[in-house]
Amino acid sequence: MYTEQGDPCKVLKLINSDIQSPQEGEVLVSMMAAPINPADINMIQGVYPVRPPLPAVAGNEGVGKVIAIGSGVQRLKTGDWVVPGHSGWGTWRTRALASESELIRVPSDVSMATLATMAVTTCTAFRMLKDFASLKEGDVVMQNGGNSGVGKALIQLAKHSGLQTVNVVRDRPDLDQLVTDLKSLGATHVISDAFLRSRDMKEFMKGLPAPKLACNCVGGKATADLLKYLADQGTMVTYGGMSKQPLFIPAGPLIFKDVNLRGFWMTKWNSIRSQEERQAMWDELCDLTRKGVLEAPKHRLVPLQNFEEAISKSMDSFTNEKQILSMGD
Amino acid sequence: MYTEQGDPCKVLKLINSDIQSPQEGEVLVSMMAAPINPADINMIQGVYPVRPPLPAVAGNEGVGKVIAIGSGVQRLKTGDWVVPGHSGWGTWRTRALASESELIRVPSDVSMATLATMAVTTCTAFRMLKDFASLKEGDVVMQNGGNSGVGKALIQLAKHSGLQTVNVVRDRPDLDQLVTDLKSLGATHVISDAFLRSRDMKEFMKGLPAPKLACNCVGGKATADLLKYLADQGTMVTYGGMSKQPLFIPAGPLIFKDVNLRGFWMTKWNSIRSQEERQAMWDELCDLTRKGVLEAPKHRLVPLQNFEEAISKSMDSFTNEKQILSMGD
Repeated sequence: MYTEQGDPCKVLKLINSDIQSPQEGEVLVSMMAAPINPADINMIQGVYPVRPPLPAVAGNEGVGKVIAIGSGVQRLKTGDWVVPGHSGWGTWRTRALASESELIRVPSDVSMATLATMAVTTCTAFRMLKDFASLKEGDVVMQNGGNSGVGKALIQLAKHSGLQTVNVVRDRPDLDQLVTDLKSLGATHVISDAFLRSRDMKEFMKGLPAPKLACNCVGGKATADLLKYLADQGTMVTYGGMSKQPLFIPAGPLIFKDVNLRGFWMTKWNSIRSQEERQAMWDELCDLTRKGVLEAPKHRLVPLQNFEEAISKSMDSFTNEKQILSMGD
Repeated sequence: MYTEQGDPCKVLKLINSDIQSPQEGEVLVSMMAAPINPADINMIQGVYPVRPPLPAVAGNEGVGKVIAIGSGVQRLKTGDWVVPGHSGWGTWRTRALASESELIRVPSDVSMATLATMAVTTCTAFRMLKDFASLKEGDVVMQNGGNSGVGKALIQLAKHSGLQTVNVVRDRPDLDQLVTDLKSLGATHVISDAFLRSRDMKEFMKGLPAPKLACNCVGGKATADLLKYLADQGTMVTYGGMSKQPLFIPAGPLIFKDVNLRGFWMTKWNSIRSQEERQAMWDELCDLTRKGVLEAPKHRLVPLQNFEEAISKSMDSFTNEKQILSMGD
């Protein structure tokens, strides 16, 4: 929990407290696993648009098990696995009392690490592919941050739908290995940002249908680089701003190519959509996971009591390994 | 006409040539008036996305009269007033042979200067108000370049629809006069870009419903200034880039406010819409003009043979006066 916003390593404390029995419409959840995401850190720092009232339990994604139900609970039963249906719920804990309506039921035959990390990254990729362009087999989707959590989920989901992907990643010494890894997930093309800006890029893109959808989590000039290749009347969705720079959008393509620039924020989607729509999305994603379409991200389970180590690791390093707090149930 | 792209003062020549009688499906048009717009200049310079095959007759807007018709012409008759239905048609001439399908019929009881200057500015404002947001009486539309041709058309059309407008103009010594002028056209609020960036702006906007639509012809940081006040799920349409800078779009509002950034180009709209849709737009705009909703822009008629003087004037000065070539018929 944290009682004030600030450096997560300083403000987060492990607190023991009593919890009531579930009242009418409530269920008692035993949390099993919850990852540490950049947005969680930002929320604790107070630099995220959602600020839960303090004191607050941190963490936004995670999976738990219903261990007791109050009267009048209809949809859930003891033993069901659940995930929170919206942000700011507080997943870094062992027990939580929650109103039934706040929870999404998920199957228990899907990997816990997959379920725990699905709410932000996988759902974001899923919605971007579904809601912004009418895509058919063979169409091209271009994205930067191809190696991000969302990027990898998008590669897998796109592959499953017969879409081609052009994935931009930052140049790095082990680029070949990364290209191999992303291609094994289903990426059609993986290119470095150096290649993206090279003369060969134009020629390379001529060999493909123009992308109808581009997904941007970088911002700055990288936005213009995507926009350059976007099809006429295509859509670019921005879901992050890793460069911490405003998007640079040349007026020409925006006006003359009649493209559509959108933003996407999973939290907003969850807050304005119905319980039924959210449940339907989770059902479809769990089904895809069961079919082997979606791999769990590379991760490391850390017991909740060692949260400080996991927090530092997730903040300090450039590792691709996601830190997942494990509640040991 | 011009036979090569370049400085309009150098490459444009007045040419005399013979013209055939109208063949099947064709009409002979006697041009009456055609304005000089920035896009015409850019097209001659070769820096506009539309480049007509050379040699070409310059000019994109204008109004003429049908003086002869070929066989099989159905919609038009001698004496009808017409405007070209698309860009690059070449309006700076006395006579033109055209296929009937290229022309839009306009009424002859509307001011010639209004008709001649409607295709770009008025139609752009009309479409932006119509196609990008569902606006109802009392809603707020915000725009920069409030003193541009499109800006003034938008003010008048918005006023007619009961919409409030917040119009940003560049700071200038005679700001009070400009505010008075734009308010007399129907502007609800006129503010300088200095005020837009001042501390008082936030307080001022609190007194109004958040704008559902913002129209941007400036680009650069001015884009972020509009975006800041745009309503959640609002739309910003960019139709010009006067600052010649890319748009600066902070990722935050784009993502968290779920806004929609679009571009608009009248030329594209004309090229992808049907003859019927274009004719319907013109009918509606001519009707509004007849009702006194739309004033003709401040202008100066210049005989076609003095085109060089009119070109220099339109390129060199910051005057608000539009130069309209008059063919003397």
